[in-house]
Amino acid sequence: MNLETRVRESFALQGLMQTLSASVTRVIAGEVEISMPVSSAVTQQHGFVHAAALAAIMDSACGYAALSLMPEDSNVLAVEFKVNFVAPATGSSIRAVGSVIKAGKTITLTTANAYAVSSEGEKLVAVMQATMIRKS
Amino acid sequence: MNLETRVRESFALQGLMQTLSASVTRVIAGEVEISMPVSSAVTQQHGFVHAAALAAIMDSACGYAALSLMPEDSNVLAVEFKVNFVAPATGSSIRAVGSVIKAGKTITLTTANAYAVSSEGEKLVAVMQATMIRKS
Amino acid sequence: MNLETRVRESFALQGLMQTLSASVTRVIAGEVEISMPVSSAVTQQHGFVHAAALAAIMDSACGYAALSLMPEDSNVLAVEFKVNFVAPATGSSIRAVGSVIKAGKTITLTTANAYAVSSEGEKLVAVMQATMIRKS
Amino acid sequence: MNLETRVRESFALQGLMQTLSASVTRVIAGEVEISMPVSSAVTQQHGFVHAAALAAIMDSACGYAALSLMPEDSNVLAVEFKVNFVAPATGSSIRAVGSVIKAGKTITLTTANAYAVSSEGEKLVAVMQATMIRKS
Repeated sequence: MNLETRVRESFALQGLMQTLSASVTRVIAGEVEISMPVSSAVTQQHGFVHAAALAAIMDSACGYAALSLMPEDSNVLAVEFKVNFVAPATGSSIRAVGSVIKAGKTITLTTANAYAVSSEGEKLVAVMQATMIRKS
Repeated sequence: MNLETRVRESFALQGLMQTLSASVTRVIAGEVEISMPVSSAVTQQHGFVHAAALAAIMDSACGYAALSLMPEDSNVLAVEFKVNFVAPATGSSIRAVGSVIKAGKTITLTTANAYAVSSEGEKLVAVMQATMIRKS
Repeated sequence: MNLETRVRESFALQGLMQTLSASVTRVIAGEVEISMPVSSAVTQQHGFVHAAALAAIMDSACGYAALSLMPEDSNVLAVEFKVNFVAPATGSSIRAVGSVIKAGKTITLTTANAYAVSSEGEKLVAVMQATMIRKS
Repeated sequence: MNLETRVRESFALQGLMQTLSASVTRVIAGEVEISMPVSSAVTQQHGFVHAAALAAIMDSACGYAALSLMPEDSNVLAVEFKVNFVAPATGSSIRAVGSVIKAGKTITLTTANAYAVSSEGEKLVAVMQATMIRKS
């Protein structure tokens, strides 16, 4: 199965991603992009996108970036992730780009940036460092 | 306004928490509990609760725990959080308990545990360490 | 070999711990304490104990706490750690207590608190969450 | 006072950096490099450079990178940092490069990479994400 199909089929099984109306917008080996429209379904109390909604698509982007470099029968799970939030997230959509820093046999280190997209351009809103583990 | 009302009114404004069907189940000064039913709306590709759905209610529990010790006109934002996932999360609901480790004038350090609740009891599934900042 | 001997023999091989004049002050299954005297050898630019010197003994305390629950021929390595600093560290010594939150076959999650010890008592100065991996 | 002088004068006051024989090897606005020779003074039990010795120079590199973009009378403190270790660190020296991701009025987000330098070239050994706070 080709890489993009593999990622898209797995992604379609993630109930949370459907709940957030997120979609896979790019897949290459070692890098996956996930986008999410901004709506009241993903906000916090001040009307910004909730930190955890940013984290959700960043985590998925990191997980699939890791998976994209693993053998075809692998599964991937998050061991841990860490996110810093650098600006309030507003706009029309959020774009999370996850990429692999170091792919290991068991453990893969990944990182993701999240950008708020608006008519004025893109703004970095969060940065993640995430550890993924391969389960066969 | 009393503490519990303050937390519940702010929580009601968090679109994401409604999207996840999460609710505030306990509020005391320095500790807030948020619960979320397990359903296909919050899963990942293997049918477990998505790491980021766990993170979402832990983050909110930490944020409100921090807010509960701040002056009444304060707002709270996550500077960063870090979550370790220790077991697959299944069951009927998730219970996240956030508490304050150290309340500062500007920065408050919080922690949260998430437990998967099933007919067999509770199981620790994730642990968060989160930094909150006060905005007046 | 008994647990305490195993920890102490490994600890004696850690050049950095000798450089910091750190010592193992308590070992039980799942919990290890490491202490370090405060001196100008471990300070930062304002005369407080350097964040990284705190992290050093916390990391070792976490690593040995993890090792204490592993089979006897195991080695342990840090996958990652995360530390929050909650107060300036001054006093006569630092006491770091590392303990296991969840021991897995491969991955063990640990936590540590660091306390500054002075004639006025103890003060929490830092909190760590650390992921350890077993290498056989 | 010029930027490099400011960083070097502060660095000279960090007892821990002298204990580790670390030195500032490059300063530009928003990016600081710190190097440390590999010796038995900084090892862990298997003879590799101790995770915390890597963290120490990464933390200092991040702190000074943050300081380099602050007003001249500022002090900087680490709120928290998080490090992932991706390969055993051996060689003749370690080179840590800290840089600013987002400089804020109070909070600055930084990142650092650490490289083990040997006759065979450089190898990435650790990655840090660190939050710095300005104290005036």
